[in-house]
Amino acid sequence: MRTIKLIIQYDGTNYCGWQEQTNGISIQETVELALAKILGKRVRVQSSGRTDAGVHAVAMPAVFRTESTIPLKAFVDGVNTHLPQDIAIQSAEEVPADFRAIGGARAKTYRYTIYNSPIRSPLNCRTSWQVRDTLDLQAMRQAADYFVGEHDFAAFRGANCSAVTSHRRIDAVLINQQGAFITIDVTGGGFLKYMVRIMAGTLVDVGRGRFAPEHVATLLAEPDRQRSGVTAPPQGLCLLQVVYPDKSVMQKTE
Amino acid sequence: MRTIKLIIQYDGTNYCGWQEQTNGISIQETVELALAKILGKRVRVQSSGRTDAGVHAVAMPAVFRTESTIPLKAFVDGVNTHLPQDIAIQSAEEVPADFRAIGGARAKTYRYTIYNSPIRSPLNCRTSWQVRDTLDLQAMRQAADYFVGEHDFAAFRGANCSAVTSHRRIDAVLINQQGAFITIDVTGGGFLKYMVRIMAGTLVDVGRGRFAPEHVATLLAEPDRQRSGVTAPPQGLCLLQVVYPDKSVMQKTE
Repeated sequence: MRTIKLIIQYDGTNYCGWQEQTNGISIQETVELALAKILGKRVRVQSSGRTDAGVHAVAMPAVFRTESTIPLKAFVDGVNTHLPQDIAIQSAEEVPADFRAIGGARAKTYRYTIYNSPIRSPLNCRTSWQVRDTLDLQAMRQAADYFVGEHDFAAFRGANCSAVTSHRRIDAVLINQQGAFITIDVTGGGFLKYMVRIMAGTLVDVGRGRFAPEHVATLLAEPDRQRSGVTAPPQGLCLLQVVYPDKSVMQKTE
Repeated sequence: MRTIKLIIQYDGTNYCGWQEQTNGISIQETVELALAKILGKRVRVQSSGRTDAGVHAVAMPAVFRTESTIPLKAFVDGVNTHLPQDIAIQSAEEVPADFRAIGGARAKTYRYTIYNSPIRSPLNCRTSWQVRDTLDLQAMRQAADYFVGEHDFAAFRGANCSAVTSHRRIDAVLINQQGAFITIDVTGGGFLKYMVRIMAGTLVDVGRGRFAPEHVATLLAEPDRQRSGVTAPPQGLCLLQVVYPDKSVMQKTE
């Protein structure tokens, strides 16, 4: 029995998210159906985590087990011929049987992209959130620093989040600007449902002057979802990389 | 009577090109229909040129005439509310009645984007051409230099191109690389049908080693469409800017 780790890139626009759902087509089932064309039977593909409907991934790691002796190359080129244009396997490698895609990750990096302009951009609307108001980047960076460390993120989780604990570790929140684009790169040990999107929405509210930067410190000390910002829309979010304890850093490919 | 110049951005994926056609929905008619919602009647919108089906524009200039006294802002924000997500007016300004969008342009810049990787990228497939082979950029840049100047581009025009003369002026061809992306920026006085796409296809054939760089010089001296490269696919092409003799440089917005 082999355990194969895939790195999958996708444009999540047309999907209900990574995980199989009743309300639409998921990335997971689309990949499983394409794999079945090569393997001759359906196998379960387990990713390093879920992404919400409309969220993208540059490099989502996912594993499956198979008794097939097909060369690894077939799990890239072969499977890609059976996938739609908006999903593609980037690489395949054999990993130890005890490799855990989901619990084993040391850190993940998500990028949230804002298109900061009063006019919308058709060439970027699938992969960014258009924010019309001028944003104070200095204030946003000051607020972002409060996230770093281990905190209770209960003010930054969706109402239907089922995680047992809302304590999470954030390693870095980096805010950069290039022309009209503002990116927020969040690296951490793990994330609650909607966590990055609520962090992004809250930082934008700081940038707009609705919240003082210190408000983030208050939200972490005295969690209250009613007092944090909006959930930023899904299309601005993209999973960039997942790091595993061994050498397996799954890099952003561009 | 006012003459209004619009700058229009679009993702051309879902359209049959700028110009109205019988085989699909055009950018032109979509803009005209949205304008009609604001003006109360349909007006003719004339662009600085056509773009093919599937080709994009960061900043396409287009003019129309109207007796309406509606503020310019309505031609941006108002019209955008009636346009689909993949088309948006970026700006509107009043220009002299003798302004000619089509014949008056001094120079245009197109960007052709190649995604140079054996594996396709779902997040970039709408706006680039995936080329699997390794490309020799030095050879491509050497070949590109031959295009600069006034030449007969008969080897670089589509079979159904109706232009009277195939002589055109090219000001610059700049090739850059960033990660897996190779961009070819072509600036010139005007372009024949498919001209940039055949130039890009020919340069890629030089990069692959199929043609020597000097082959481009031969194609310009002794035009023969049978001996130039393939027509690169439309999704890699994007109109970046159009320059008019007055101060009107329509800049790339990102």
